[in-house]
Amino acid sequence: MQVTAQDVAAARSAIQSHVVRTPTVPAPRLGEPLGVRLWLKLENLQFTGSFKDRGSCLKLQRLAQAAEPPRGVIAASAGNHAQGVAYHSRRLGLPAVIVMPKATPFSKVERTEALGATVVQSGESVTESYARAVEIAAEQGLAVVHPYDDPAIVAGQGTAAMELFEDRPEPDVLVVPIGGGGLAAGMALWAKHIRPQVRIVGVQTELCPSMHAALRGEAPPVLRTHTLADGIAVKAPGAVTTPILRALLDDVVLVSEADLERAVQLLAAQQKVVAEGAGAAAFAAVLARPEQFAGREVAAVVSGGNIDRRMLATVLLRGLERDGKVAKLRIEIFDQPGVLARVTQLIGASGADIIDITHQRLFTHLPPRQAELDVVMETRGRAHVDQILLTLEAAGFPAQLL
Amino acid sequence: MQVTAQDVAAARSAIQSHVVRTPTVPAPRLGEPLGVRLWLKLENLQFTGSFKDRGSCLKLQRLAQAAEPPRGVIAASAGNHAQGVAYHSRRLGLPAVIVMPKATPFSKVERTEALGATVVQSGESVTESYARAVEIAAEQGLAVVHPYDDPAIVAGQGTAAMELFEDRPEPDVLVVPIGGGGLAAGMALWAKHIRPQVRIVGVQTELCPSMHAALRGEAPPVLRTHTLADGIAVKAPGAVTTPILRALLDDVVLVSEADLERAVQLLAAQQKVVAEGAGAAAFAAVLARPEQFAGREVAAVVSGGNIDRRMLATVLLRGLERDGKVAKLRIEIFDQPGVLARVTQLIGASGADIIDITHQRLFTHLPPRQAELDVVMETRGRAHVDQILLTLEAAGFPAQLL
Repeated sequence: MQVTAQDVAAARSAIQSHVVRTPTVPAPRLGEPLGVRLWLKLENLQFTGSFKDRGSCLKLQRLAQAAEPPRGVIAASAGNHAQGVAYHSRRLGLPAVIVMPKATPFSKVERTEALGATVVQSGESVTESYARAVEIAAEQGLAVVHPYDDPAIVAGQGTAAMELFEDRPEPDVLVVPIGGGGLAAGMALWAKHIRPQVRIVGVQTELCPSMHAALRGEAPPVLRTHTLADGIAVKAPGAVTTPILRALLDDVVLVSEADLERAVQLLAAQQKVVAEGAGAAAFAAVLARPEQFAGREVAAVVSGGNIDRRMLATVLLRGLERDGKVAKLRIEIFDQPGVLARVTQLIGASGADIIDITHQRLFTHLPPRQAELDVVMETRGRAHVDQILLTLEAAGFPAQLL
Repeated sequence: MQVTAQDVAAARSAIQSHVVRTPTVPAPRLGEPLGVRLWLKLENLQFTGSFKDRGSCLKLQRLAQAAEPPRGVIAASAGNHAQGVAYHSRRLGLPAVIVMPKATPFSKVERTEALGATVVQSGESVTESYARAVEIAAEQGLAVVHPYDDPAIVAGQGTAAMELFEDRPEPDVLVVPIGGGGLAAGMALWAKHIRPQVRIVGVQTELCPSMHAALRGEAPPVLRTHTLADGIAVKAPGAVTTPILRALLDDVVLVSEADLERAVQLLAAQQKVVAEGAGAAAFAAVLARPEQFAGREVAAVVSGGNIDRRMLATVLLRGLERDGKVAKLRIEIFDQPGVLARVTQLIGASGADIIDITHQRLFTHLPPRQAELDVVMETRGRAHVDQILLTLEAAGFPAQLL
C-alpha cells in the first residue's frame, strides 16, 4: 500500500490550521428508530461543503512548497473536487484551471469561478474532461491534481478519521461513501490503525457500483451516472485506492435511489443537516439495512452538503407527498354554480388546508356537463386523506388520490 | 437575580447524560464575507431539534425526584417547548399534557403526540392555552412547566453556554435569540461569569419586540406574532428572566422578516445547517448589521431547526428567485403555429433551462390574435436574464421579468 496511517497523521499536522475541524455528533433521532447508536461526522461543514478540502489542501501545499513549484494546477471535476482545488490553490497563490463537462449546471461553474479558478468546459463526461485536463497540463506546464488516485489526496482525506476518533473513540462500524475511494481508503487506514476491531463498510449506489465490482474481481458493470449521489458516480476505481480498500474494507453496501432520497429527506427534516446525495449515502446504507447495524455503535460520514437548492426543495416536497402530508385529489363534479363552494367546504371542515386547485373541462373522460377538479392539500397523513375521500364520496363527489 | 452561574454549572452535571452535547462550529463561509470570525452553536442538533431539551430536562428531573412527585406535568406551547417537555417527561415516566392553540399545524401536534404526550387543543393563542393549562393543572393535580419563567428552566438553558466556551473560549460577542428570555438569560449568566468582557447581544424580531421594549422601560408595543421566527414571538417578558437580561445584556438587535428569511436561506444553502426562523435570528442579526460585528470573533446560537418542510422548501425556492437563478418571464407572442418553437429555441440557445411554461389567451390586455407566454426558467442570474430579455426583444418578442 502506497499510503500508511503515519502518512495520515503527518497530513493532519500539515493541514489542520487550513481546514475546518468538523464535529462528530450523536444522532439519536435518526438512530433510535433503527436500533443503532448513530454518530454523524459532518464533513458538509467544510469551507467548500465537502471533505474534498482535506486532500486538496495537502496536495496543493506540497506542490506549492516543492523545490520547483508548478506554474499552476489543473483538475477535472464537475463538483466538490473542483471547489476544494479552487479554494486551496487560491489560498496558496497557485493559479488553478478546472475542466468541467459541457453540461455542468451553472451553479457549479459559478461557485468554482467564485473561488478564483478558471473554468474550461470540455467533454461529455468527467472522463473526457480529465483527458482534456491532461492535454492542457502538458501544453501549459500545469500540475494535474487527481481527485483520488494520489497518495497525498488519500492521506489528506484520512484526517477526517483522526478527528472522528478524537470525538468518540468507540464505534463498532464506520460507514463511508465510495466514489474513487480516496475518502474511504484514507479513513480506513487511520480507523484500522487506531481501532483494529472496527468494521468498515463502504457505500456505493446500485446505479454506479464500480468499486464494488472491482473489489470482488468482477468485470466492470454497466454504470449509470444519473444518480442523486452524483458525487460518488465514479467510473474508474483508483490504482492507489483499490488495494487499500481491498485490504481494509469489510463490506460494500449498495443503496438504491429511493434509499438516497429518503436519507437526504430524513437528514434535513429530522437531523437538521443538509446533505447532498453522496453525502447521505452512508446513512442511506444504515437506513436500508438496519439489521446489519442494529445494536451497534455506528459512525456514518456525511461527506458533503453541496446539493442544489432546487433539488433539496424538491426532495423535501416529495417527502411530504410520500408521507401523505401533501396529497392531490382528483374529484368529479357537475360543472355548475355552487359546487366548488360545496367541495371546498367539505375539505375545509375535514381540517385539511387547500394549497392549489385547478378545474378541467377538456381532456377528461367525463361527460360534457361534468368536470374534474384537482385539489392539492396539506393533510395529517394517509388516514386523513382516506377519510376525506370517503366524505367526498358520501356527498356525491367521487374522488381519487393521484 | 434568582439564578446564578453556579446554578448553571449544577444543571450541567444533572442533565449532561440526557441531552445532546452539541458542537460549536466555525462558519467561515458565512462569516468571511461579513468580515466576522463566526462560530455557530448548533442547538438544532438536540433530540427534539432545539435547546428546549435542556431546561425541560432539568425541570422535569427535579419534579420526578421531589419528595412528592406530581401525578404528571402540563405545559402550553405550540412548538419547541412542547416537544422538550414531552420527550423528557416520557423518559422520566411522568405523564405529560400539552395544551396547544386550536390553529396549531398538524405536524406540530403529531410530533408532540409521537413523543408520548397527550395534546389538548384549546385557545386562540399560546396565552389562552396557558390559562387553560393552569386550570387543568388545578383540576388534575399536575405540575405546570413554564417555558421560561422558572429558575430551573433558565439554569438548564444556560448549559449551552458552558459547552460553547469549552469548544472555543474566545468570542468577543455572543449573539442569542430572545423569546421569553430563558436561553439568553441562562447563557448570559455563564458567559459573563467565565468571560466578563464578552458582549452579549440579544435578538428579537421587529414584529414582536416584547423584551426589547421591556428592557428599555417602554410600554409594551403592538406585537404581531405572524413572523417567520414564531419561536421567539413571545408576548410577556419573564419575571425571572427580565432582571437577569437587564443586568447582563449589552444590546438587543431587532431583525426584519427579510433578514430572517435570508438567514434561513444562507444557513441551509451555504452552511448546510437547517434552522427555523427563530434559530436563524442570531445569524440574521449579524447579517443585517455586519458593521456592529466586523473584525470580531462572534458566536451565534442556532437555537432550533424545527422548520416545517414546506416552509423550508419555499424559502429555498424564493432564494433562487431572489438571486435571479429562477426567473419568470412574460412574453408577448402572435398566437400561431411555430411561434412557441421559435421562442423556446431562443431561450434554449441562451443556455437557460425551461422549467415551466403556460400560455394565456384570456385575461390579457393584448389584442385577440396575440397571447402571453409565461416561462419559468433556471438561469445563471440577473445578468443572464437581462441578456435573454434583449434577445427576445430583438427577435420581435417583447418580454418582461415578472
